[in-house]
Amino acid sequence: MNNLGIVKRNIVRADRAAVDRLSKFGIATIHEAMGRVGLMKPYMRPIYTGAHVCGTAVTVLLHPGDNWMMHVAAEQLQEGDVVVAAVTADCTDGFFGDLLATSFRARGARGLIIDAGVRDVKDLTEMRFPVFSKAISAKGTIKATLGSVNIPVVCAGAVINPGDVVIGDDDGVVVVPAHLAAQVADAAQAREDNETAKRRRLAAGELGLDMYSMRDALAKAGLKYVD
Amino acid sequence: MNNLGIVKRNIVRADRAAVDRLSKFGIATIHEAMGRVGLMKPYMRPIYTGAHVCGTAVTVLLHPGDNWMMHVAAEQLQEGDVVVAAVTADCTDGFFGDLLATSFRARGARGLIIDAGVRDVKDLTEMRFPVFSKAISAKGTIKATLGSVNIPVVCAGAVINPGDVVIGDDDGVVVVPAHLAAQVADAAQAREDNETAKRRRLAAGELGLDMYSMRDALAKAGLKYVD
Amino acid sequence: MNNLGIVKRNIVRADRAAVDRLSKFGIATIHEAMGRVGLMKPYMRPIYTGAHVCGTAVTVLLHPGDNWMMHVAAEQLQEGDVVVAAVTADCTDGFFGDLLATSFRARGARGLIIDAGVRDVKDLTEMRFPVFSKAISAKGTIKATLGSVNIPVVCAGAVINPGDVVIGDDDGVVVVPAHLAAQVADAAQAREDNETAKRRRLAAGELGLDMYSMRDALAKAGLKYVD
Amino acid sequence: MNNLGIVKRNIVRADRAAVDRLSKFGIATIHEAMGRVGLMKPYMRPIYTGAHVCGTAVTVLLHPGDNWMMHVAAEQLQEGDVVVAAVTADCTDGFFGDLLATSFRARGARGLIIDAGVRDVKDLTEMRFPVFSKAISAKGTIKATLGSVNIPVVCAGAVINPGDVVIGDDDGVVVVPAHLAAQVADAAQAREDNETAKRRRLAAGELGLDMYSMRDALAKAGLKYVD
Amino acid sequence: MNNLGIVKRNIVRADRAAVDRLSKFGIATIHEAMGRVGLMKPYMRPIYTGAHVCGTAVTVLLHPGDNWMMHVAAEQLQEGDVVVAAVTADCTDGFFGDLLATSFRARGARGLIIDAGVRDVKDLTEMRFPVFSKAISAKGTIKATLGSVNIPVVCAGAVINPGDVVIGDDDGVVVVPAHLAAQVADAAQAREDNETAKRRRLAAGELGLDMYSMRDALAKAGLKYVD
Amino acid sequence: MNNLGIVKRNIVRADRAAVDRLSKFGIATIHEAMGRVGLMKPYMRPIYTGAHVCGTAVTVLLHPGDNWMMHVAAEQLQEGDVVVAAVTADCTDGFFGDLLATSFRARGARGLIIDAGVRDVKDLTEMRFPVFSKAISAKGTIKATLGSVNIPVVCAGAVINPGDVVIGDDDGVVVVPAHLAAQVADAAQAREDNETAKRRRLAAGELGLDMYSMRDALAKAGLKYVD
Repeated sequence: MNNLGIVKRNIVRADRAAVDRLSKFGIATIHEAMGRVGLMKPYMRPIYTGAHVCGTAVTVLLHPGDNWMMHVAAEQLQEGDVVVAAVTADCTDGFFGDLLATSFRARGARGLIIDAGVRDVKDLTEMRFPVFSKAISAKGTIKATLGSVNIPVVCAGAVINPGDVVIGDDDGVVVVPAHLAAQVADAAQAREDNETAKRRRLAAGELGLDMYSMRDALAKAGLKYVD
Repeated sequence: MNNLGIVKRNIVRADRAAVDRLSKFGIATIHEAMGRVGLMKPYMRPIYTGAHVCGTAVTVLLHPGDNWMMHVAAEQLQEGDVVVAAVTADCTDGFFGDLLATSFRARGARGLIIDAGVRDVKDLTEMRFPVFSKAISAKGTIKATLGSVNIPVVCAGAVINPGDVVIGDDDGVVVVPAHLAAQVADAAQAREDNETAKRRRLAAGELGLDMYSMRDALAKAGLKYVD
Repeated sequence: MNNLGIVKRNIVRADRAAVDRLSKFGIATIHEAMGRVGLMKPYMRPIYTGAHVCGTAVTVLLHPGDNWMMHVAAEQLQEGDVVVAAVTADCTDGFFGDLLATSFRARGARGLIIDAGVRDVKDLTEMRFPVFSKAISAKGTIKATLGSVNIPVVCAGAVINPGDVVIGDDDGVVVVPAHLAAQVADAAQAREDNETAKRRRLAAGELGLDMYSMRDALAKAGLKYVD
Repeated sequence: MNNLGIVKRNIVRADRAAVDRLSKFGIATIHEAMGRVGLMKPYMRPIYTGAHVCGTAVTVLLHPGDNWMMHVAAEQLQEGDVVVAAVTADCTDGFFGDLLATSFRARGARGLIIDAGVRDVKDLTEMRFPVFSKAISAKGTIKATLGSVNIPVVCAGAVINPGDVVIGDDDGVVVVPAHLAAQVADAAQAREDNETAKRRRLAAGELGLDMYSMRDALAKAGLKYVD
Repeated sequence: MNNLGIVKRNIVRADRAAVDRLSKFGIATIHEAMGRVGLMKPYMRPIYTGAHVCGTAVTVLLHPGDNWMMHVAAEQLQEGDVVVAAVTADCTDGFFGDLLATSFRARGARGLIIDAGVRDVKDLTEMRFPVFSKAISAKGTIKATLGSVNIPVVCAGAVINPGDVVIGDDDGVVVVPAHLAAQVADAAQAREDNETAKRRRLAAGELGLDMYSMRDALAKAGLKYVD
Repeated sequence: MNNLGIVKRNIVRADRAAVDRLSKFGIATIHEAMGRVGLMKPYMRPIYTGAHVCGTAVTVLLHPGDNWMMHVAAEQLQEGDVVVAAVTADCTDGFFGDLLATSFRARGARGLIIDAGVRDVKDLTEMRFPVFSKAISAKGTIKATLGSVNIPVVCAGAVINPGDVVIGDDDGVVVVPAHLAAQVADAAQAREDNETAKRRRLAAGELGLDMYSMRDALAKAGLKYVD
């Protein structure tokens, strides 16, 4: 009735060129370019400052305290993928450490996004293996219950379909649906071009009030200046 | 009836010399010097290790998901100010990023204290623009509702009046009322002078029990040593 | 009726050689070697990245907002000890700063584990004095109520007896009962030896599915591969 | 590019008869019948003890602090619907009170599931209008930003498509995909039939250890009884 | 330098008639009547369903784990007062129980608002003594440190001056500045009169879309209806 | 090396008469009678108002998402016991529902204290089976991993040994070591006798300031009355 115990082998990954273009933008820019949607909850944090990842999602659905499916996911990885792991209930256990990172990297993965905990963060940092997680915990897991690989999942409040683009940086994590990747990259580029000019004007002391022509709207809304 | 939609242009800033003196102390020392009051809640954290700010407050009251008033605040900034932003309800959205930081700095601001989220933290870190916030979130905001500038606000549990001194370091954020700035700087200096001598004695192995003459009080309170 | 107001002077510390051996392992490895027990809650975090501590516990039970017993604990320290501080109710106040760190270090302490807040983190970081805490807060404490030193305490969800080994690293904090120290060090070493070989095979692209012979168990549990 | 600003008028609602059958089961039973999936996060709580709702979802996507789309949703309601409201960022504001409840009920709604706050809970309780929410807050909202109605949403960690069955009781909230409604009702009935017999045996003092034949598996796993 | 250790005896209480009028409105109505300000954080909850309080504030500033000032406050109470207690740092201890409630009531108090914990909630409920708090905890407190009575405090995110009106109901707690009490009562009455008519129309099935004439604004904002 | 996979059959239960005497006191009184220790964290709440339990602890250590040991514990129950369940990592899953409650009650249990979630709360409430838990969640658990029964556990921050007395009421949960049961009951009785007289005096309007002779100490501490 549900799709637990399923591994989907053939998934449609977002266009590689679009993924590469998206990798150059910050996630704040990308999320704005999509119309302010697609963000994971802000509790998702990089395990080291400066961590950055951009790739196509291989999704995993885990159960609390059980990382069996991580090994199943490893086999489905291709060069340029990012593992996106969701759990069926809140759990901070450490589902992932340096051994799995070694395996994932050997199979082509660029990083991990997990709505749970990870461990061996010192090793992961030395490996420069980018991980975005909800928690850091040394607590190990067992291998007893089936989950699934490459089904749609909800991770940290966002829906991810296998093949979608996931991008993580110091601001958090954003998801771009695979079929929108090129379009979003275009919009992000346009936005960034626009911001460069604005940045220069603001740096010169021009006010946003004038640059964005806000004074009339503010007055109309009733803003009062007093001394 | 209330003071929403108000911008106060003329505010009395704390004495510049006192602000400069306060900038040399840690906030733990300053808060003790005031009698253990004036701290913001400990969830206020610097966006990068080592961030430090000390200046006079320009206050902003925002609504959830709306950063319109930030642009209004920019115009009220003077050299040496720090923007202190409160929100009328809990919100982790990213109200502030590198464009606003560029503008604020160009207008003289030394940093931002915000009881909400910010984004572009990698850029802000490279700019060394000190920000103390409740959250990091790429989620953007709109510009639709009036708040106010330079009214008294409650930010992270502390009351701030425009012109007060706000100091942020790795331990958090403290507020010193403008009229007490010089007095608190004196008390902080006295406290620090006193601590230097204590530090030397403790480093030499002397016990706090003896240095602070605690043994009698402990015995009187009933402390028992057993083997 | 209870053991408040007690200082136990003679405690049995874990064997020094075993402590030294344990100091070489990550806490994830140690906790696995003990059968996945002994961890403190994951909210316990180092105040600076890379902080590491391993030593024998001198325990302290404090009351909210009162650090009097820290000074009593200082006198009980021996070379190689780590102070483990619990509080009778949740509290984020800053019970510890650079003066106490100076004193603790002068008396032989290697670090502090505290289920509460600390302050002066910039100084503590410069001193490289490892602290693992629940919070960072500039809020000072008073010295008015008796607690105890070297009684069994519950710290961040774990029971610690005086003399136990406590180890903290970037993954959190683990406690090893004193009488098990050597045995756990052996088990941790065995585990680590085993992992080195595994790491090499995984790095070469071998799958955990094959290395751990998981395919049969997965099939038996009903895992289905679809295209 | 995204589906903000969209109202879908024609949605396929789950079969009424299946919905009625599902309304007789507790959500714990339903979630087990689906294979332990479909639950919202446990922070979703009824505003009064004993609140119960079962109906077909009309979904709404809101922005923080803005309940404009609630009025748009009201027009799309049919007899037997339940409004399921998600917000694009965490927010505890009170998006809903007794006026909207009056309107929703007049248009056929059976209740509300909202991943945010509500107010007028005394009135809502007197009306016996079942609401399951993350928070209770008197904080009002504005009407300024477009969201959407009847698009797929993520609410409290669960994906809901318009027309799906949502059931709330004292244990929380579960979602049953529309096309599975009848099948899940069958499975829930089978489960409940089975439990009645078990309950009788357990009430008579029989142990689960024997009733479920667990003793062998426990012994095999290594369970040891000591005196 | 600060106002710790101060008891202000003569405070200006809000006009009694205005307080009585305010006591008839829900706090959602009052907060809207003030322009959507004045609310405490939504974590402030009544200890029993249906608790309601409205009166003039006698404020208390406490230290974590210390309720000494509660007894000092008792002497300052007059008929119709409500005690509003803030703490200098987050604390969930039980600062208040049935003995203090007995004393407060005997001195004229109508209830308690406290940004901390209380205990004896069964007794308090039987007494129908309304309390709004952050937590329930049996943990007792000591009497060792001075705070203050009748100074301005920040309680659960709101500023309260002694004499202000505080109103608590199932939706939370709101504060009305003393000098605005009559004006806010008028505005609340106007708002409530207006809502009665609206409620009738909505109950008859009229849509908010039409009653509030929202359709044009929605269309202008770009709302699209699809099938 | 550790005690996972252990069931201890013979435990020393607290004296029945002392347990019965303790059942008459509120937990705030009991915790004070012990010297303000023994409380579980305040997040432990009764699933229905007025729930009360007092009995001897049969302890269970569970793993996240796995309630296998609950069935093992059932066999160890005797008339007058209370099950106290700890989990090796934070988890809100529903480990317990009406079937287990039926079994536990049939074997003599008076209630359950669990540092995790439970479900079927409507049924449990109708059965008047007292449960104190951290969460309510419909999420079911599996039966795959060994824990232990009747070993010392840490539950919600408190240490419980099998046979200890646990008492829960609307204020939370307290633990009384088995060997102290009679002594604590005496102290609680003395305390309660003392409170009855105090209550009468306070109800007559006498101030705590006078009844407890606090005025001198307050003046000495520097309290100032101003007008």
